[in-house]
Amino acid sequence: MAFTEFRPLDENSLIEYIKATPSLFSKIGDSHDGLKIKEVGDGNLNFVYIVVAPSGSFVIKQALPYIRCIGESWPMTKERAYFEAMALKEHGVLCPRHVPEVYHFDRTMSLIGMRYLEPPHIILRKGLIAGVEYPLLAEHMSGYMARTLFYTSLLFRSTTEHKRAVAEYCGNVELCRLTEQVVFSDPYKVSEYNHWTSPYLDRDAEAVREDNVLKLEVAELKSKFCERAQALIHGDLHTGSVMVTHDSTQVIDPEFAFYGPMGFDIGAFIGNLILAFFAQDGHAGQGNDRKMYKEWLLKTIEDTWNLFHQKFTALWDENKNGSGEAYLPAIYNNPELQKIVQEKYMKELFHDTLGFGAAKMIRRIVGVAHVEDLESIKEASVRANCERRALELAKTLLKKRREFVSISGVISAMKQVQS
Amino acid sequence: MAFTEFRPLDENSLIEYIKATPSLFSKIGDSHDGLKIKEVGDGNLNFVYIVVAPSGSFVIKQALPYIRCIGESWPMTKERAYFEAMALKEHGVLCPRHVPEVYHFDRTMSLIGMRYLEPPHIILRKGLIAGVEYPLLAEHMSGYMARTLFYTSLLFRSTTEHKRAVAEYCGNVELCRLTEQVVFSDPYKVSEYNHWTSPYLDRDAEAVREDNVLKLEVAELKSKFCERAQALIHGDLHTGSVMVTHDSTQVIDPEFAFYGPMGFDIGAFIGNLILAFFAQDGHAGQGNDRKMYKEWLLKTIEDTWNLFHQKFTALWDENKNGSGEAYLPAIYNNPELQKIVQEKYMKELFHDTLGFGAAKMIRRIVGVAHVEDLESIKEASVRANCERRALELAKTLLKKRREFVSISGVISAMKQVQS
Repeated sequence: MAFTEFRPLDENSLIEYIKATPSLFSKIGDSHDGLKIKEVGDGNLNFVYIVVAPSGSFVIKQALPYIRCIGESWPMTKERAYFEAMALKEHGVLCPRHVPEVYHFDRTMSLIGMRYLEPPHIILRKGLIAGVEYPLLAEHMSGYMARTLFYTSLLFRSTTEHKRAVAEYCGNVELCRLTEQVVFSDPYKVSEYNHWTSPYLDRDAEAVREDNVLKLEVAELKSKFCERAQALIHGDLHTGSVMVTHDSTQVIDPEFAFYGPMGFDIGAFIGNLILAFFAQDGHAGQGNDRKMYKEWLLKTIEDTWNLFHQKFTALWDENKNGSGEAYLPAIYNNPELQKIVQEKYMKELFHDTLGFGAAKMIRRIVGVAHVEDLESIKEASVRANCERRALELAKTLLKKRREFVSISGVISAMKQVQS
Repeated sequence: MAFTEFRPLDENSLIEYIKATPSLFSKIGDSHDGLKIKEVGDGNLNFVYIVVAPSGSFVIKQALPYIRCIGESWPMTKERAYFEAMALKEHGVLCPRHVPEVYHFDRTMSLIGMRYLEPPHIILRKGLIAGVEYPLLAEHMSGYMARTLFYTSLLFRSTTEHKRAVAEYCGNVELCRLTEQVVFSDPYKVSEYNHWTSPYLDRDAEAVREDNVLKLEVAELKSKFCERAQALIHGDLHTGSVMVTHDSTQVIDPEFAFYGPMGFDIGAFIGNLILAFFAQDGHAGQGNDRKMYKEWLLKTIEDTWNLFHQKFTALWDENKNGSGEAYLPAIYNNPELQKIVQEKYMKELFHDTLGFGAAKMIRRIVGVAHVEDLESIKEASVRANCERRALELAKTLLKKRREFVSISGVISAMKQVQS
């Protein structure tokens, strides 16, 4: 049985596919007795099958030529699977501890075979809704972001390597366009896809569409997103793209990967933690006011940036005499200059992070795709209160990001909005 | 006779080549009696032949796999001819009035056949040295830059078109690297290629290498040059890349073309006009103190930016409901917002222009390739005085560019340095 052209798999044809594919078949041993296949794709875009046999397991992810959660009315190239597989492999080499291994990629079938992140791994977002603390989360995610972003930037790479890679990922334009639309455009105009907790947030959504200063700032961020090839970013690094246990943190789903601004990744992650924070009041119940958990979230946000800063600059220091072409040692290798260069770079990156993080928050409240943290709050008036606070903070961060000098200032602003 | 693989042409083999190439042969009629061929490449990189027959003419430009002015010791891909031909064609469509027509391109031979810019066309730089006024220069160059930059930016293009083009021009990385080295790196470190008017400028060159603030600013510009795909820029828009008569202005030699920051082109042109200005005292002689000419240069610099600003924003206004995806009309189509958006955009572009212009000036004084404006001043002490003033202004522009709010402020700073 040959798969020489694309066809969507179902559970039966998947078994045939696995039998015909040694890199997959070898994972589950010679026999497929006791093979269990379960479709679990709860994401917005793809089909995902868990394949478990007594002797091994893996996950099969297949991209279809449209956006799953909307349907065939919103076509989307299945070539995204190619960029996802490439990014998983590249980021996997740079940070194997936090990126699942790819066993198999089939471009024709838009199909990735990769490590099954076995229980008790769950989607981080679900853990945050349940109020579970992950003591290593900031440590792990800061390490993942520091390594993947540093090593794919001109701080480590030559221009030749950089431009070759930039050119390749320009091919992922359809996914970039989806981001442009849902993050940087739709929330700021009337769009059939937008929705919000109505009628409570009707005025708030309108205010976003009528806020000239906000739109001016969003335009600057969009321009950076479209034009600035700073590093190979994940491109969709929200808390639904991370799977966790108490000890393990695994980043999945980089199908939006391309060469873009680093702050888009860091901002996506931190912005989604901030959304999780503001959602907590909606999840507070008998016997758990979530106060301690909110403290943990604040600490995790603060630690994520501070540890990222520490790890990223440490990688820079380690590699300052390496092959990176942004700051040649013959010019920048004096301690005082090295210090002011790093401070300037990290300050701009911090402000990018806040700006992109804020934009990602706004779109989750008044745009097309919302987050379960907030959507799962059943009482609309309670949900609206949570959302309004998150929106207020996001607008402040987006407009005044350059006035923030440290992440502790962001934490203070969050507390102020909350109170 | 077939040219199935690359070979450098000489005047004899060029005749054979022309005979075998209908798009060229047709330009000079059926007979090649009276055909005259002259090698005139006085540029740094290529061989250029003028081909004139009684019934027509053209120019043949062939790239060799090294930098002509340095020799085979500095290899340089001859693929640059491909990018030059593409840029000539693309910019030619956008601005046919100021870009010579391409008749023929042969990628194998790295050979372009194009319009011969007949006398009295001369290289603008030579006209500026001779003290010739070109009353339409600012008008023409501002138009060329406004059209080529606007129409290849996201103000006019969709992201899909943009990313496809960006990817293609990533292939011109070797030429980008040459710029990175000679503009953003070499002047700020000890390099075998650097030279300056010694011993007069020894301290000045050393001061450039030891100026931390200058290096910090240059790093920011280099990062923009390497990472920001804003528009299809010429990439080498100095006054040696422009041919002029009293009425005609033609931009040639875009072999450095790629998707980069617009300010790099505008800055290159204005920066070279500023160099021409500071060189004038070295060309003043009996009966001509060049005072009037310096006034004309100041006015041309001022007009170039102001007319560029006017034409660029006019194109933006005309196309604000078009296909450009940076500022969607559904979001930005209110007059007040449109105004602040443009002001912000143009302010950043102005500061980029001053920064890149300054960097281009500095490299022409203490880097590898100098300009004839200054080199042709025979008396070293006189030349050094001119160069020191230009260098002083360039350092001010680079470090304090964000404090300049209009081009008239730059003119004032030039006058102050001059006095």
